[in-house]
Amino acid sequence: MLPSDYSGQNCSIARTLELVGERWTILIVRDAFLGVRRFDDFQRDLGIARNVLQARLERLVEEGIMRRELYQERPPRYEYKLTRKGVDLWPTIVALLQWGDRHAAPEAGPPVELLHKGCGGAVDSRRRCERCGAELEAWDAEARPGPGALPAQVASLAGA
Amino acid sequence: MLPSDYSGQNCSIARTLELVGERWTILIVRDAFLGVRRFDDFQRDLGIARNVLQARLERLVEEGIMRRELYQERPPRYEYKLTRKGVDLWPTIVALLQWGDRHAAPEAGPPVELLHKGCGGAVDSRRRCERCGAELEAWDAEARPGPGALPAQVASLAGA
Repeated sequence: MLPSDYSGQNCSIARTLELVGERWTILIVRDAFLGVRRFDDFQRDLGIARNVLQARLERLVEEGIMRRELYQERPPRYEYKLTRKGVDLWPTIVALLQWGDRHAAPEAGPPVELLHKGCGGAVDSRRRCERCGAELEAWDAEARPGPGALPAQVASLAGA
Repeated sequence: MLPSDYSGQNCSIARTLELVGERWTILIVRDAFLGVRRFDDFQRDLGIARNVLQARLERLVEEGIMRRELYQERPPRYEYKLTRKGVDLWPTIVALLQWGDRHAAPEAGPPVELLHKGCGGAVDSRRRCERCGAELEAWDAEARPGPGALPAQVASLAGA
């Protein structure tokens, strides 16, 4: 029998993919970096089936990448937030974003620009600010609509 | 109908995942960075079904991430190599590796260490050499067995 998972691979890349390589999982993490917190907001943004979203969020919580916090008691309602382990996925998210910007962006250009908060410089490929040279962490950056953004994205990101 | 792909997402991360997010694809690209070139070597290292490997390699060639080169005429035999577009996935590969090293490594430690070729310094999270400070590209780095490597990996990586 050939394995259907990566269990035969003694490799940190394979282990990472076991945890975040499922369909939609990285886009849930992306949304969390953009400030999405609530189930219905993830669901609306991703347009996926609720049971798939529920399973992905539960897996992320189990793996300690996100945590669930009660924000309303009656009826109970939860928010999902990245843990430190989740925030550590920022370099992966930035690398995927920048590769897509370079090799798979729409003709109009990147849908999203990642900027140094307060300064406005672009985030370079080593996650430094192109304007001031600062070495940026996830919390130093903000996403703004790029030239290839759709109108709904302009509205949503401009208000983020 | 809910979409089963990411086509509703105007996002460079989603577009990247459409191209390299399929099961095994990133590990094929990883192997290519480690110097694997031939179908049988990919197959042996990954332990996946030949038809799955064939489909993944064909997709990578179609998308311009790898190219196929004839290395023997009778019978025809091909090698698979990363194109520039493929080499541009290095930051993604390094980010996945480093996250796994930090959050999902075996008890003994990382199976693989990424070092500055010639210098021997470790590759930091911004892909600079921790020893000499150089900003590294894919071709400046080499993989060596780490403390968590299995004996077969020690043999294979030490000879790379």
